[in-house]
Amino acid sequence: MSLNTDTRPVGIFDSGLGGLCAVREALKILPNEDIVYFGDSGRVPYGSRSYETIQKYSRQDMNFLISKNVKMVLIACGTVASVAIDYLKEIFPDIPIIGVVESACEKAIKTADASKNKNIGVIATEATISRGAYKKYIGESDETCKVYGKACPLFVPLVEYGHVDNGNTSNMITKLTAEYYLSELRDLNLSSLILACTHYPLIKHTIDSVINKDKIVKTELIDAGLEAAHRLKNALTEENLLNSANRKGRLEVYISDEVFNFSHIASNFLGCDINFEVTKIEIEKY
Amino acid sequence: MSLNTDTRPVGIFDSGLGGLCAVREALKILPNEDIVYFGDSGRVPYGSRSYETIQKYSRQDMNFLISKNVKMVLIACGTVASVAIDYLKEIFPDIPIIGVVESACEKAIKTADASKNKNIGVIATEATISRGAYKKYIGESDETCKVYGKACPLFVPLVEYGHVDNGNTSNMITKLTAEYYLSELRDLNLSSLILACTHYPLIKHTIDSVINKDKIVKTELIDAGLEAAHRLKNALTEENLLNSANRKGRLEVYISDEVFNFSHIASNFLGCDINFEVTKIEIEKY
Repeated sequence: MSLNTDTRPVGIFDSGLGGLCAVREALKILPNEDIVYFGDSGRVPYGSRSYETIQKYSRQDMNFLISKNVKMVLIACGTVASVAIDYLKEIFPDIPIIGVVESACEKAIKTADASKNKNIGVIATEATISRGAYKKYIGESDETCKVYGKACPLFVPLVEYGHVDNGNTSNMITKLTAEYYLSELRDLNLSSLILACTHYPLIKHTIDSVINKDKIVKTELIDAGLEAAHRLKNALTEENLLNSANRKGRLEVYISDEVFNFSHIASNFLGCDINFEVTKIEIEKY
Repeated sequence: MSLNTDTRPVGIFDSGLGGLCAVREALKILPNEDIVYFGDSGRVPYGSRSYETIQKYSRQDMNFLISKNVKMVLIACGTVASVAIDYLKEIFPDIPIIGVVESACEKAIKTADASKNKNIGVIATEATISRGAYKKYIGESDETCKVYGKACPLFVPLVEYGHVDNGNTSNMITKLTAEYYLSELRDLNLSSLILACTHYPLIKHTIDSVINKDKIVKTELIDAGLEAAHRLKNALTEENLLNSANRKGRLEVYISDEVFNFSHIASNFLGCDINFEVTKIEIEKY
């Protein structure tokens, strides 16, 4: 078999900047790949929008990435991956699409199998939980699993305003909020808890300290963005689409409106300083 | 002087549903007036948008209200009232426009005069504070006043997710957050504190309990929406535009996208059940 190389970039999109958490994982796992990221900062958040609006927005997001000649797309937005991925796969049959939902669910089912504990927790925004995509996917794959969803709507603003795992007093509000949201889930002794929102990895330690307080058998936290990045690598490998060039991949970031405090927020998500160009585009044109 | 009556409605708009707090006050103060409310739920929040985008959005909001034949407009959105009101007054010279900034500032200056304490606090979103409109307006009206602005970005999501003044444990997160944001302001012994965001009246008691803890001389809380409603009444009276019909005014509500949990959120802001039609419009067409 000859070694193929496909130098086209990978596309990743999200309703805002949170998807940069998935980019961070992809950069680690696929260091040679070029990545084009689109964050729809002008129309964030998607979660509270109607179904038709989410279809329209995500179709435009896909069209933009395709205009950048991407070879595969990772949907980092939990809302789109929950409610519009089938629609997008249907209207873009020529481009492989990976969503954050399926990857995280498969990891949770594996963890449940290994531990023989079939209780799985899912935390996310209100819209993601009420739409029940994780519950549905897991139920269809393994009906012996029991899925407990819990909306944690304050976690996104807490992360965006810097109340992350930093050991500062600002994190005390997150800790109290996590206690408020998660104490019921803690009593269920879950095998795993899916962090089904781009932002949550930044408060993973806080969530862990609450959900695993006084536990001998720990609940495993599953980062949906990280799992999707692993799946992206597997898919590129299987389809012989990897970029085998021996050089560091480039990251290009596009947004649909200027973001107040962009560098600060983006570097928080990416876990590094911002040393790339950020370009504003008119997404309504796509 | 003959008693005039002007049966046209009053227009009120905001970037989302928070402006319904100002509607609540207007309904009390002007019970005979018909009110047309537009909440730009499809494009909320405005605070993080660029200046050009805020101009464009608020121009469209005005055009929509004018299409409903309004006689006067109250801008309940702190962002628009801070950065775009002069622009709107210039391009819509025929319609009187009242913003939440000027009314609250004038009340704060009066309070400072009466108490001979010239320290005034302003709490709002990050965008409103960093744009400094309240500081500028007060400074230009009375340069002896000192204005201290403090961004409290978590207050909006706390209110929207129900952590309001309800005496429940859910309010403990708000209390801790208020302590985090307001302890510095408390030490300044302010004559007044302007609640410069539509949402804050719903956590007024929590804010009061923190800012006035152990105080003999109290800091007066100024509700920007309430002050604007008073100013609206004065302006209608002065310009002879009141509706003198002896019947209860009607409220019409328009939004630009469906809102998850609309009735719950809207009734929280309005302080009553939702017994009116809500119509979705395409604001981009205006």
